[in-house]
Order: sequence, then C-alpha cells, then structure tokens
Amino acid sequence: MLPDAILTQIAFDEHGLVPAIAQQHDSGEVLMLAWMNHDAVAETLATGWVCYWSRSRRRLWRKGESSGQTQRLVELRLDCDGDTLLVLVDQTGVACHTGRRDCFFRAARDQGWQEIAAPATTPEALYGAARA
Amino acid sequence: MLPDAILTQIAFDEHGLVPAIAQQHDSGEVLMLAWMNHDAVAETLATGWVCYWSRSRRRLWRKGESSGQTQRLVELRLDCDGDTLLVLVDQTGVACHTGRRDCFFRAARDQGWQEIAAPATTPEALYGAARA
Repeated sequence: MLPDAILTQIAFDEHGLVPAIAQQHDSGEVLMLAWMNHDAVAETLATGWVCYWSRSRRRLWRKGESSGQTQRLVELRLDCDGDTLLVLVDQTGVACHTGRRDCFFRAARDQGWQEIAAPATTPEALYGAARA
Repeated sequence: MLPDAILTQIAFDEHGLVPAIAQQHDSGEVLMLAWMNHDAVAETLATGWVCYWSRSRRRLWRKGESSGQTQRLVELRLDCDGDTLLVLVDQTGVACHTGRRDCFFRAARDQGWQEIAAPATTPEALYGAARA
C-alpha cells in the first residue's frame, strides 16, 4: 500500500475526521459508524486491522483492543465526494459495546424506538477482564 | 408514526445534523451516506420517501427530486449512541449522482484509489431534462 496516494484524496472535515461505515464483507451487515483521522486510515492500511479515532477519548482506537472484538480489513472504499469511507471488514464476535452484533438495534415504530436485537454477550464478558 | 418519540432520542450534532447511511433493504448494498436534520427525519417518517439535508445547498433534499432516483423508506434504525441513522430503503435506479448504483465505487489499491464500478447511466440522462 502507498498511503499517501490514498490519504490525499480523502476530504477530512474541519476536525480532521471522516466518517467510516463498517460493513461485514460477506453478509452485508452494517455494523457501526465511527470516525477516522489521517493516522487511523494510515494505520488501518498498514496493519490490516481497523483503527478509528475515538472522539470521546481523543486517541486512536484500535477496534477490539479491550474487548478482543477486532475488525480485519478486507477492503477500504471511498465515496464520490471523498468525504465518507466504507470499510469492508471481517468482524470477530460483536461490533457493539452493548454486546450486540451491530449498533443499529433500534427501529422506528409507532410507539417510538423499539429494540429489535438482543445482546449476544454482555459488556462484562467483553470488558470485565480488561477493566479488572 | 409519532415523530416526537423518535426525534427526541436522536443526538443531532452541533450543526443540528446526524449522519444517515442508506442501505438497500434486500441486497444489503451500502448506497450512500448523507445527513439529516430534525425536519428531514420528520418528513421521511411522515411521507415514507427519504429526505436529507443538503449541506451544500442548505435546504431539504428530497432524494430523487431532480433525477427521479427516489428512495422509499423501508425501516429507520438508530445506533447505540443515538448519533447515527441507518436507513433501509428501496432505491429506484441509481443512488449516486455519477450514475453509479452506489457512491462507494473507489477501492484502495497499491497504486491509489481505483474505480471498481462503472456508471449505469449518465448525469445527463439523470439531470438533463430537469436542468434544460
């Protein structure tokens, strides 16, 4: 990979970030949306393991570093305007910190948002050892 | 639908916007990412036709209003943090203004970004009549 030829085409926003949609490469599940900065894109391409920028922690976030629920990069795609990434991944386990496979487990219904997917595991199982 | 019960749970950003990922409901194709404000979400739920907020034109953007390439709402989903929408749609024709089915037609390769999908139609065919 030659990250410079890749990075210069990405239109990072005023915060130096670009939204990145993670999609399971074979099933097509949309797992999550997170953000990448210049270094996160470069590291993802260099290592093959997906790395985001955590806006809350203000540091690089190697997906799965605490939980073991890593994302292997399959293919990185860029949209027509250059301001959104689609990251095709192979997700180990669950993508969501709530223990669900993906983050989009609430659907709009007449009564409001309704949960349509149950956790496959618990946050304690995912993070307990790392936090202990 | 009761949009208020829906809208109050969405964490709009400092610009009053939330990213919305459009996914073809049956094939799983990720078509595009655009942005919605309060009124775009409300209109989408009320009409069943997907409406975004155009950041460049600074107005509501009823997808397909110029091109005829509309998106019918199938299901609206919200992520765990409440700050990203997944919009399951039935896309008429092509989602991308370049005439491609989806906007993510560039893939990272050793040489840089490489186009991996050809247009199915032309911008002139999509917008010519409306602009004439």
